[in-house]
Amino acid sequence: MTKTIGLICGSLRKNSFNRIIAQSLTDMYDSVQFRWIEIKDLPLFNEDLEVGGDPEPVTSFKSAIQEVDGIIIVSPEYNSGISGALKNALDWASRPPKSSVLSKKPVGLIGATPGGLGTAFSQMQTRQILEAMQVHILPFQKVLISQVHEKVDSEQKVLTDEKTKRYLQRYLQQFIYWIDHTPILD
Amino acid sequence: MTKTIGLICGSLRKNSFNRIIAQSLTDMYDSVQFRWIEIKDLPLFNEDLEVGGDPEPVTSFKSAIQEVDGIIIVSPEYNSGISGALKNALDWASRPPKSSVLSKKPVGLIGATPGGLGTAFSQMQTRQILEAMQVHILPFQKVLISQVHEKVDSEQKVLTDEKTKRYLQRYLQQFIYWIDHTPILD
Amino acid sequence: MTKTIGLICGSLRKNSFNRIIAQSLTDMYDSVQFRWIEIKDLPLFNEDLEVGGDPEPVTSFKSAIQEVDGIIIVSPEYNSGISGALKNALDWASRPPKSSVLSKKPVGLIGATPGGLGTAFSQMQTRQILEAMQVHILPFQKVLISQVHEKVDSEQKVLTDEKTKRYLQRYLQQFIYWIDHTPILD
Amino acid sequence: MTKTIGLICGSLRKNSFNRIIAQSLTDMYDSVQFRWIEIKDLPLFNEDLEVGGDPEPVTSFKSAIQEVDGIIIVSPEYNSGISGALKNALDWASRPPKSSVLSKKPVGLIGATPGGLGTAFSQMQTRQILEAMQVHILPFQKVLISQVHEKVDSEQKVLTDEKTKRYLQRYLQQFIYWIDHTPILD
Repeated sequence: MTKTIGLICGSLRKNSFNRIIAQSLTDMYDSVQFRWIEIKDLPLFNEDLEVGGDPEPVTSFKSAIQEVDGIIIVSPEYNSGISGALKNALDWASRPPKSSVLSKKPVGLIGATPGGLGTAFSQMQTRQILEAMQVHILPFQKVLISQVHEKVDSEQKVLTDEKTKRYLQRYLQQFIYWIDHTPILD
Repeated sequence: MTKTIGLICGSLRKNSFNRIIAQSLTDMYDSVQFRWIEIKDLPLFNEDLEVGGDPEPVTSFKSAIQEVDGIIIVSPEYNSGISGALKNALDWASRPPKSSVLSKKPVGLIGATPGGLGTAFSQMQTRQILEAMQVHILPFQKVLISQVHEKVDSEQKVLTDEKTKRYLQRYLQQFIYWIDHTPILD
Repeated sequence: MTKTIGLICGSLRKNSFNRIIAQSLTDMYDSVQFRWIEIKDLPLFNEDLEVGGDPEPVTSFKSAIQEVDGIIIVSPEYNSGISGALKNALDWASRPPKSSVLSKKPVGLIGATPGGLGTAFSQMQTRQILEAMQVHILPFQKVLISQVHEKVDSEQKVLTDEKTKRYLQRYLQQFIYWIDHTPILD
Repeated sequence: MTKTIGLICGSLRKNSFNRIIAQSLTDMYDSVQFRWIEIKDLPLFNEDLEVGGDPEPVTSFKSAIQEVDGIIIVSPEYNSGISGALKNALDWASRPPKSSVLSKKPVGLIGATPGGLGTAFSQMQTRQILEAMQVHILPFQKVLISQVHEKVDSEQKVLTDEKTKRYLQRYLQQFIYWIDHTPILD
C-alpha cells in the first residue's frame, strides 16, 4: 500500500530554504505520497483553550498527524535552538485526549541553515523533545545542510545542489524503510 | 533609582503555577518595581510579518523589554523542553532593527513543575538559547521548583511554602545585585 | 539461550551507590547472566597508544563488550555531566579496528544521585554520545534515582527501597525484551 | 603585572591538532605568559584515591590551576561529546579540600575538528559542566575551527591559516580583557 509521509516545516516564511528542501523530497519517490502538515494557524499553546475541546486548527493538525505513516520535520535553527513555531506545534501534538498523536510515530529530522552548522543545536534540542514524547526518531542519521543559500535556487524554489539531492534521496529511502521497521515496544 | 524588573511567564494558562511563582516575587522587595511582559498576543514568528515593520504586539513586546533593567523568566517545561510560547517570544526578541533587545540584558531563570525535576531540561535549553542571544544570564544560580502543586494555594493563587519563599527571596536579591554587576564586555 | 548482560558502573569508588544499584539487578532474573565490565584499568584515551595494537586493558574491555548481548550503564553524575571515567571508556569503545564495538549494541541507562535530579543532565549527555556512536539505547525509559542514600544500605551494599526495586525490575524486563527487538537498520 | 594563562589540551596525542592550535596562541602576545597544564598523568577520578590526601599528579594539577590567572581549554570532540580525558581532569578539579580550584576562574573554550562542526556538541557539553562548576566562562564567544587539517602544518606543528590566526588573536584579546572583567558575585 502507498505510504503517506507528512511534511512539517519549522519556518513560516513563504520562501523558506527549509520549505524548499522539504518540497524537493516530494519528487523523489513515486511510491510515496507526501502531504504538508501546516503549523502556522495553530494558536500559541494554552491549556485553557482545551476546555470544551481543541480549537479547530488544533483538531485538523492532530488528525493530519494521525493519518500519515510517518513525518519528516524540516526546520531552521533560531538562536541556537528549536524554532518557536515548531515547538508550539509539538506542544499541541503532545496533549490529550489521544495522548500524544506523535507517540510511536516514525519521524525524521532535516535542517538547513545559511551558516556552517546546519541546525546542529536545534536538532539536538528537537531530539531531546521528541524522545520525551516517545517518538520513533530515525536513529543515527543526521541531515545538517549548511550554506543552504548556495544549494537552492530561491527564485525557482528548487534544490539545485546535486550532492545534497543524492544525500536526501538516500535519507528518504532509509526513512521509508524505517516506517516499516520501528521497534515494537512492550 | 528604583529598578524595574520585567516578568515573563512561559505558560499562558490563567492559573499557571509558574505565574503564581512569578507573582510571589512582586511582594518581596519594596525597592523594586515589577512589570509583566506578556507573550500571549504575539503571532507565531514569521519573517514575512516583519515587512513594513513589526506588527503591533511585537512592537510593544520589544519596547517593554527595552524599558526594564532586567527580566526574570518563570516557565514550565513542556515535553522535556522549552515552552513553545516562550521560544516564540525569544525568537521575536532576537530580531532587528534593534538587533536583539535582549542582548546584554540581565536575565534570571526560574521554573516550576508538579514533577520531580523542576524544569531541569527546559532550563538547560533556555540557557543555550539565551547564551546564543548574548544575554547576561545570572550565572550559577538555578531555581528548579519541584512538586509545585504542594507549594502553592491554587485557589488563592499564592505561594505558601516558606522554604521556597526564602529561596526565591535570596535569588531575587542576587538578581538585583546582578543587574548592577553584569560584566562590561568589549 | 541464556542472555548475558554486561554491567558498567561509571563510578570507580568501592562503595559507590551506583554500583550497589547495578549489583541489585543481578538477583532479579534467573534467566539472565550478568557480567561486570570494568573500566577502572583503562588508560586515558590517547590515539598514540593504539600504535602497534590496543594496550591490554583496552583489548579485554572491547572483547567483553562484544561478548555480551546488551549493556546496562549505571552511572553517577559529576558536575552536571557524564563521569570522566565513563566517557573515557566510551571513547576507547568507539575506536577501530572493529569500528565501535558498541555500534548497534542494546544499551540501557540508569543513574542515581543523593540529590534530587537523579543524573538528569548526565543521562542527557550520555544519550547524545551513545546516539552518535550508533548505539541502540532503550528508548523512552528513564531511570533517575534521586535521594539514593536513603534507598540503599551502604554497609550491606544492598538496595533496600522496595519501590525502586520494583521499578528496576520492570526496567530490566523491558531491557531484556529490547535485546530481541532492536530495530534492524539497513 | 604580567598575566599567566594556563593551556589545557583535551587530546593526549602528541600531534594533536588542538595542541597545535593551543601552541599557536603562545606567540601572539608578549605581555602574557602561557603555561601548559597537563592532564595526561591524572588517574581516573576515584573518590577512594582522595583518602589520605590527593595523589601526586592531582596535587600538581590543582596547584597549576590555582597559579594561573585564567585558562584556555583547547579540545577535540569525541563521539559528539567532551573528551573523556578532559572531563576526568575537570572531575578532579571540582573536588575538595579547596572546593573546586576552577570556581570563579576565567576560562575560554576553543575546539578544532577535521569535520565541519568544529566541536559544537563538545563545547555545549563542556559549557554545561563548567557552568555547574561556577566557572567564569568567557561569554558569547565561540571558537569552532572546522576542517582543521587544512589549516595547520602537521609536520611543523604550526597553524598556517591566516584567517584562523586573526580570529584566535581577537579571541585571545577578549579573553585577556575578560580576566580583568569577570563579574564580582555576591
